[in-house]
Amino acid sequence: MALIVHKYGGTSMGSTERIRNVAKRVAKWARAGHQMVVVPSAMSGETNRLLGLAKELAPAKFTEAYGRELDALAATGEQASSALLAIALQAEGMQAVSYAGWQVTIKTNSAYTKARIESIDDERVRADLDAGKIVVVTGFQGMDEGGNVTTLGRGGSDTSAVAIAAALKAHECLIYTDVDGVYTTDPRVVPEARRLQTVSFEEMLEMASMGSKVLQIRSVEFAGKYKVPLRVLSSFTDWDMDIGVEAKSGTLISFEEDENMEQAIVSGIAFNRDEAKISVLGVPDTPGIAYQILGAVADANIEVDVIIQNISKDGKTDFSFTLHRNDYAKALDLLKAKVLPSLGAQEVIGDAKICKVSIVGIGMRSHVGIASKMFRVLSEEGINIQMISTSEIKTSVVIAEKYMELAVRSLHKAFDLDQPIA
Amino acid sequence: MALIVHKYGGTSMGSTERIRNVAKRVAKWARAGHQMVVVPSAMSGETNRLLGLAKELAPAKFTEAYGRELDALAATGEQASSALLAIALQAEGMQAVSYAGWQVTIKTNSAYTKARIESIDDERVRADLDAGKIVVVTGFQGMDEGGNVTTLGRGGSDTSAVAIAAALKAHECLIYTDVDGVYTTDPRVVPEARRLQTVSFEEMLEMASMGSKVLQIRSVEFAGKYKVPLRVLSSFTDWDMDIGVEAKSGTLISFEEDENMEQAIVSGIAFNRDEAKISVLGVPDTPGIAYQILGAVADANIEVDVIIQNISKDGKTDFSFTLHRNDYAKALDLLKAKVLPSLGAQEVIGDAKICKVSIVGIGMRSHVGIASKMFRVLSEEGINIQMISTSEIKTSVVIAEKYMELAVRSLHKAFDLDQPIA
Repeated sequence: MALIVHKYGGTSMGSTERIRNVAKRVAKWARAGHQMVVVPSAMSGETNRLLGLAKELAPAKFTEAYGRELDALAATGEQASSALLAIALQAEGMQAVSYAGWQVTIKTNSAYTKARIESIDDERVRADLDAGKIVVVTGFQGMDEGGNVTTLGRGGSDTSAVAIAAALKAHECLIYTDVDGVYTTDPRVVPEARRLQTVSFEEMLEMASMGSKVLQIRSVEFAGKYKVPLRVLSSFTDWDMDIGVEAKSGTLISFEEDENMEQAIVSGIAFNRDEAKISVLGVPDTPGIAYQILGAVADANIEVDVIIQNISKDGKTDFSFTLHRNDYAKALDLLKAKVLPSLGAQEVIGDAKICKVSIVGIGMRSHVGIASKMFRVLSEEGINIQMISTSEIKTSVVIAEKYMELAVRSLHKAFDLDQPIA
Repeated sequence: MALIVHKYGGTSMGSTERIRNVAKRVAKWARAGHQMVVVPSAMSGETNRLLGLAKELAPAKFTEAYGRELDALAATGEQASSALLAIALQAEGMQAVSYAGWQVTIKTNSAYTKARIESIDDERVRADLDAGKIVVVTGFQGMDEGGNVTTLGRGGSDTSAVAIAAALKAHECLIYTDVDGVYTTDPRVVPEARRLQTVSFEEMLEMASMGSKVLQIRSVEFAGKYKVPLRVLSSFTDWDMDIGVEAKSGTLISFEEDENMEQAIVSGIAFNRDEAKISVLGVPDTPGIAYQILGAVADANIEVDVIIQNISKDGKTDFSFTLHRNDYAKALDLLKAKVLPSLGAQEVIGDAKICKVSIVGIGMRSHVGIASKMFRVLSEEGINIQMISTSEIKTSVVIAEKYMELAVRSLHKAFDLDQPIA
């Protein structure tokens, strides 16, 4: 007897047969007495198909110039799958209604192709739930102040689901996907990777930002901010499995420090293959430099990941950051053309063939020597560390891309992540 | 230097290559100094693909129960093609913006899958035109008072285009399609069919309602009501043809009685293959009977075409009407279950294998004997006439479906429509 949000990924919505199974699963939950909100992604392949058409029409640098129209285009994929799911639910004998982002309304800013949710009006959805309907809310999209359709970026449906769960104060948000939970690392890289039964919100945040790819990072941020319990589980189990068993499967992302939480020092190894690094060399070490460099980058809507500035020598310092590989050329051009001349720096250099590997664990907070163990393992494999960045619960290194798999496997083994919890 | 509305059908939008040609054509018109509004259909096949998915999920009588969700689903096809066209226009160096029906706003009633436009707010579009932008307006759809997405039914993009042209008081509305104009009859049935350079609004209305399939009938009604000059022309001519030649090609549907209008007595032969007929026999001939029968049918959102009631005998009469074949079973059930008992009629019978063939012409107004010539031609071919209906400018007969081609060809020849105008 709770308000539950289900989110289904594109693979789970990939055919009418699968949509029907989603409908049966949601209907099972509704019949068990829960108020149900469902957020589906577009059918798998659909977003790529639509954006592929756009690319044929406007090949060069099209994402920047045509943002508004790209969003209007891409948003149709989720609208179609939402309507299809509502139809499938009605065919199951349930009352159901679907809403596009602008109908809810899900208000966002105007940063096309990577908009951020600003507010959600829950009135319409709540009225429908109270009237006994299942509400299907189109993920991935919203509407800006000017009434334009916006999208939240790849994986944005996760964020939609969590934001809706937060707005409705849902009991739990279940993210159904094509994996059965969060693993100690990507099983495609390390076959011995193990599923975690629970993971703390902070760990998940670090895992997601590091590219574990199970959840969009913003969805985890949202979940943490609004304390929405989040569960990642597989949509490929039988739809009619026992609801009590299903409700405890997958991995729970908990914002409470659970006594029973698995107390490994390192919970997982995260990595990100699509990174690039840029360094601005010989920067005068004066106040405002970081802002001068990163302000320009941020203004161009480029997200930056790791930022490192080392101590200065002779009044000069080197400033480095990593970013998504897709933004590499644009950021490099920008810095060379606009920032370098006004800054009096020596040079801007970069490397698009790097990756980032991180060890993540709440247990690291109270254990020393974890980072040094990581560096030792990498050195024993002959892997050169290019950059290091640490936080309370993670340590990240930037290394050449070609060493990624080797690094992940060695660290996974060294931290005993392939061993069952005692 | 005029405000022009272009409408492109699904075939004209059928690939990125074709969308690019549409963009080049529209850009040519804009560069010639015109303010341009473009209404594209969904890419050909897309609406069928989407509705096919819905049918897989809810096979039985799904159009009635799931109207709201079907509309939300089907509307995405036009939204995608509109965004793609805006992108293609931008790639041509033009400023362009696309709007979904709810963004314009195009307000409709709530009759899902066959909604009617109630009003169009032209403010947003006009502001964009004044700012030098080309405005792409999603056809086929609107929004009802409750903020739900509605669609206008098959061919509804024609109506959208004309309604927008009317709201903006456009100079002309050009309907680009896969035929190069309005013909004396369907060239697939009669190879000798001839293209008309102009056709009167009244004739076109009769032709469209008779199934000439060039334009949705409601678009012609709208054009007549708001006196929007309408031109049907081919989108498969070269996009860079001389704009003066292009502006005079195809067929102009004129609401002015033009001195130079071709003065054939019969302008064309229209026909409709997908008809069915229903007769209610032995109805007491008392006031209110027609309403009792057709009111029930109309309440079920079924459109009726020809209606015939003959003189009564012994206080009883027979009441017949034709309707679209898709609605046949539903209407028959309805009449048998609800109307027959309360009416005291003898019987309801029907036939789903009929067709309607009509001769249409403004010239018929002042010529006698045209109808009788039609009946003679059909009789000479041994074709039995089941129902007859006449208006000022057309005469229609209902005949067995199997005679359709024979009837159309014989009439086309008998009225000299295969001969060039002297």
